[in-house]
Amino acid sequence: MTHQATIHPLDEAIELRELDRGIYTGRTTRAYWNMVGPFGGITAASMLQAIMLHPQLLGDPVSLTVNYAGAVTEGEFTIKANPVRTNRSTQHWMLTLEQPGADGAMVVATTATAVTAVRRETWGLSDVRMPEVPGPGNFERAAPAFSSEWFNAYEMRPVSGNFPQVWDDSGDASLSQVWVRDVPGRPLDFMSLAAASDLFFPRVWLRRARRVPAGTVSITTYFHADRAQLQQTGTGYIFAQASGQEFRNGFFDQTAQLWNADGLMLATSNQIVYYKE
Amino acid sequence: MTHQATIHPLDEAIELRELDRGIYTGRTTRAYWNMVGPFGGITAASMLQAIMLHPQLLGDPVSLTVNYAGAVTEGEFTIKANPVRTNRSTQHWMLTLEQPGADGAMVVATTATAVTAVRRETWGLSDVRMPEVPGPGNFERAAPAFSSEWFNAYEMRPVSGNFPQVWDDSGDASLSQVWVRDVPGRPLDFMSLAAASDLFFPRVWLRRARRVPAGTVSITTYFHADRAQLQQTGTGYIFAQASGQEFRNGFFDQTAQLWNADGLMLATSNQIVYYKE
Repeated sequence: MTHQATIHPLDEAIELRELDRGIYTGRTTRAYWNMVGPFGGITAASMLQAIMLHPQLLGDPVSLTVNYAGAVTEGEFTIKANPVRTNRSTQHWMLTLEQPGADGAMVVATTATAVTAVRRETWGLSDVRMPEVPGPGNFERAAPAFSSEWFNAYEMRPVSGNFPQVWDDSGDASLSQVWVRDVPGRPLDFMSLAAASDLFFPRVWLRRARRVPAGTVSITTYFHADRAQLQQTGTGYIFAQASGQEFRNGFFDQTAQLWNADGLMLATSNQIVYYKE
Repeated sequence: MTHQATIHPLDEAIELRELDRGIYTGRTTRAYWNMVGPFGGITAASMLQAIMLHPQLLGDPVSLTVNYAGAVTEGEFTIKANPVRTNRSTQHWMLTLEQPGADGAMVVATTATAVTAVRRETWGLSDVRMPEVPGPGNFERAAPAFSSEWFNAYEMRPVSGNFPQVWDDSGDASLSQVWVRDVPGRPLDFMSLAAASDLFFPRVWLRRARRVPAGTVSITTYFHADRAQLQQTGTGYIFAQASGQEFRNGFFDQTAQLWNADGLMLATSNQIVYYKE
């Protein structure tokens, strides 16, 4: 099929069909499959895609919170995107992703809220600068560290805080820095940026050098770049870093920043992650 | 009325009456009034209170995202709290706060999502330590910096990054640190912690030393403390710090951490804030 040969795997993964105003169906794809469901980043991108397709959309994404309520299973899903409040320059969204449960009734697998806005030029400034690191060509591409298909959808070139090679409880920090881009190349947009905001392996694995069950429960991404700045980034590398703040009683939080290669802050993102043991 | 004489202003502000399963009414109070509506932190606390009162609640708060869709006006409001998914140890919530609009129809003023969970003892560690600063007795209580009533509901003792005394565009950093506690004293709980997570004046005012229109659009708070740790904190001071990351085209994001006086991380919080000019 010509269609499948030419569409980018990310576009295929977030492809939605409108059933009714604000109601869309999509389906999971192998390319972004994680261990027991799709990569969380691609689910976030799909939620955002529903907003971007909505005929009442005002402006561009400013904030997106996605809550992973339960595993998304292989196959079709339904996303409902509701613009619950539209102001002069901002718009507020509530979303759900549903799939049929064991008894056939629809079950909520994911929830989200988002803010979109028409942005105007104002005073601006970066208080967190991109660290000075050598360019991506100076770092080896990471071999797939675990057998999740989605890992192959990214070219990751770790700068620091690499995936542990041994699980010997020797961890001493939770910071990872990486140069990354989509494979195959794809011009950056809000959806791929939302997905990339979730590409870090669990900080608890790095901090402990111990692999325990872990999964994102909720992620919030703030978009600082506008369309023109994303277009300007194009298919270039993103520099992304993430670190943990507090690990306690089954949950830790992660703070992350994503810049383009010119040092422009694209997004900041935070998440709370469940872990065991 | 004895009732009003003995109830703490925060408890009065978040007092809700159950209309139906998951549907509550409350009303704004003067004690937490901001300039054109209630202090955002007290609205967040009210949303959380609806969850805490819900008969189906599982566990304690882990994550709370509140989106300020429009100004909450003086008077009654209705909160709907819906536990859309309950798992074995986690529960996912969607909430709205509504008030009658100009035409009498209900309008969504606030949306929220939350995760609650039954937490179990695990390995844990703090990767962001509380800064070493002298105790609260070493700092003067801040005089009300602006004429918002809610400011008097807190005893704030700024350590650094004080409210600017002159608006001369001389700002050079966005970090504020403060010792703070409720006035009058009130043992810390999840609601007062949610409220305190929003107590910083807009970072853009500090960073620029210029006062421009600004307001929180969305706040996400991750709760690291459990009930016992909140009880242990009691009416003691909290040490809170906040800084901006990126200011661009009408929005900036703020990252914040709140510890108790023993250096225990209570919560981490992030928000995206609208500003003009």
